[in-house]
Amino acid sequence: MKSPINVTITGAAGNIGYALAFRAATGAMFGPDQPVILRLLEIPPSMPSLTGVGMELEDCALPLLHDIVLTDNPAIGFRDTDYAALVGAKPRGKGMERKDLITENARIFSAQGRAINDNANADVRVLVVGNPANTNALIASANAPDLDKSQFTAMTRLDHNRAKSQLASKCNTLVTDVTRMTVWGNHSSTQHPDISNCLVGGKPALELVGRDWAIDHFIPRVQRRGAEVIQARGLSSAASAADAVAAHIRDWSMGTPDGDWVSMCVPSDGSYDIAEGIVFSYPVTCKAGQYKIVQGLEVDDFNMSRLRASEQELLGERAIIEDLL
Amino acid sequence: MKSPINVTITGAAGNIGYALAFRAATGAMFGPDQPVILRLLEIPPSMPSLTGVGMELEDCALPLLHDIVLTDNPAIGFRDTDYAALVGAKPRGKGMERKDLITENARIFSAQGRAINDNANADVRVLVVGNPANTNALIASANAPDLDKSQFTAMTRLDHNRAKSQLASKCNTLVTDVTRMTVWGNHSSTQHPDISNCLVGGKPALELVGRDWAIDHFIPRVQRRGAEVIQARGLSSAASAADAVAAHIRDWSMGTPDGDWVSMCVPSDGSYDIAEGIVFSYPVTCKAGQYKIVQGLEVDDFNMSRLRASEQELLGERAIIEDLL
Repeated sequence: MKSPINVTITGAAGNIGYALAFRAATGAMFGPDQPVILRLLEIPPSMPSLTGVGMELEDCALPLLHDIVLTDNPAIGFRDTDYAALVGAKPRGKGMERKDLITENARIFSAQGRAINDNANADVRVLVVGNPANTNALIASANAPDLDKSQFTAMTRLDHNRAKSQLASKCNTLVTDVTRMTVWGNHSSTQHPDISNCLVGGKPALELVGRDWAIDHFIPRVQRRGAEVIQARGLSSAASAADAVAAHIRDWSMGTPDGDWVSMCVPSDGSYDIAEGIVFSYPVTCKAGQYKIVQGLEVDDFNMSRLRASEQELLGERAIIEDLL
Repeated sequence: MKSPINVTITGAAGNIGYALAFRAATGAMFGPDQPVILRLLEIPPSMPSLTGVGMELEDCALPLLHDIVLTDNPAIGFRDTDYAALVGAKPRGKGMERKDLITENARIFSAQGRAINDNANADVRVLVVGNPANTNALIASANAPDLDKSQFTAMTRLDHNRAKSQLASKCNTLVTDVTRMTVWGNHSSTQHPDISNCLVGGKPALELVGRDWAIDHFIPRVQRRGAEVIQARGLSSAASAADAVAAHIRDWSMGTPDGDWVSMCVPSDGSYDIAEGIVFSYPVTCKAGQYKIVQGLEVDDFNMSRLRASEQELLGERAIIEDLL
């Protein structure tokens, strides 16, 4: 049997973390023959609830779950870890300015970056889910000088999957028929879901659905889907976000299918003329734990204007927390 | 590709149902190459929340999920269904007598039995999770005259998995080393987790842990584990219950491993001298959708007295709802 992989989940007693822990322990990230050790990290007030999560995980008698570590100490939570999903973040409180939200989370994620730098496996892969995810990933990375920037990513996979599903539904086909979806930019309302390179059953999506549908219906619907779910459920997306985390880490570790790609927020290397020094969602292919930004896609003026808007937002976020970089 | 299987989940907007829907849609019941159509049934007041669950399922772009049906109409929810997990039940309200709880749920499950009888695939397999699960399964079955009684089961798999995990932890080994666990009786506090036939790494468990530990620690801990989880989480077991549902249906449909068995509540056929006409948890092996009660295990006087207590409780529950059978 393979030796177990260490997987850290922060905010593991929250709704996304709770759903994610069970997915991680049942093969959703590394396949059905890869055992895992779950390292679940929480803030002190959530430790009783985390204890309950640990009990429930034990109660499943899961063959792949070789150990569970419950802790509020980042040095223990990130010790020797191979994959870290940073889910926990400070939510926006009443009367809180956007700037305060960014600053408070910057403090949390700079500390986590240092703890990862000092305790994790040198090959660790980090996925930031807690918002503002892109800028939190930037800060974590900046505080982990011994690690490569490419080891830190943020999540637009839920947006990517939502976009695939909306397009499949419009074309009255299965999601497996939709390939080459791209979500560009920031994981925020400026994100830009772009079907201009999508294929549906091998045919260009734009020929099937038209540009007006994409602009008037598809883009705003994907951008606002989170709010739509909250309105229906009375709670924000949890199990779907957890599924997206599992999918992001699965594809990063095990590779994307030939001829297709996924969306991941990664440090910009200047591709598509996006400023370096921010974490930006790009189309990427993955193989054995390495991602590569897909090059050479056509981005027309309309799409480029949307990429620019998201880039500007990210540069603005960066300016707020510059002192922590 | 295989044609999709219809899977019905009742109470699908509740905490267990919510966790279960995502597991069912990601291969946990029928493996990674079997598509499913989810038929999610709720009561009318929960339909807005169920709509949100449906959105989140769409948002995962899951390759195995071919369709989602959301309904408060049992005839639609159970139409052509192949597997039904009856999770929704009336919980015990303040000041409600146990007798009232049993009677109110009996009404719900007799109606569901009729709807299954009239709408489901003739080969449907039913798992009752909502409490009192054993008696609810009995009532549902009694109201489905065109189906065989063996198509209706209730769940002790969470108790079974908890028991395996407690024994593995005591022996400081992995759960995969523990085989032949049995939980007998009613899914209630009279359930009887029994390690007298268990093997741990091939050795008899009782030789490793002793009878006193089993009686003084193991049995009460498994029986009270649900309350322990509630105390820690502030919420009752959800993801672990959903995992147990997936495991029960997976093993029923795809078979139990050679040399091992699982616990399932099935209609008593008089095995181990338990009265017929009740649904009782037994050790069973499964193969291709059929279960068989494991015969010939030794049950000593102590264990038999515990089986009798659970049998008496089930006969008592049966007496309360006799007019609905």
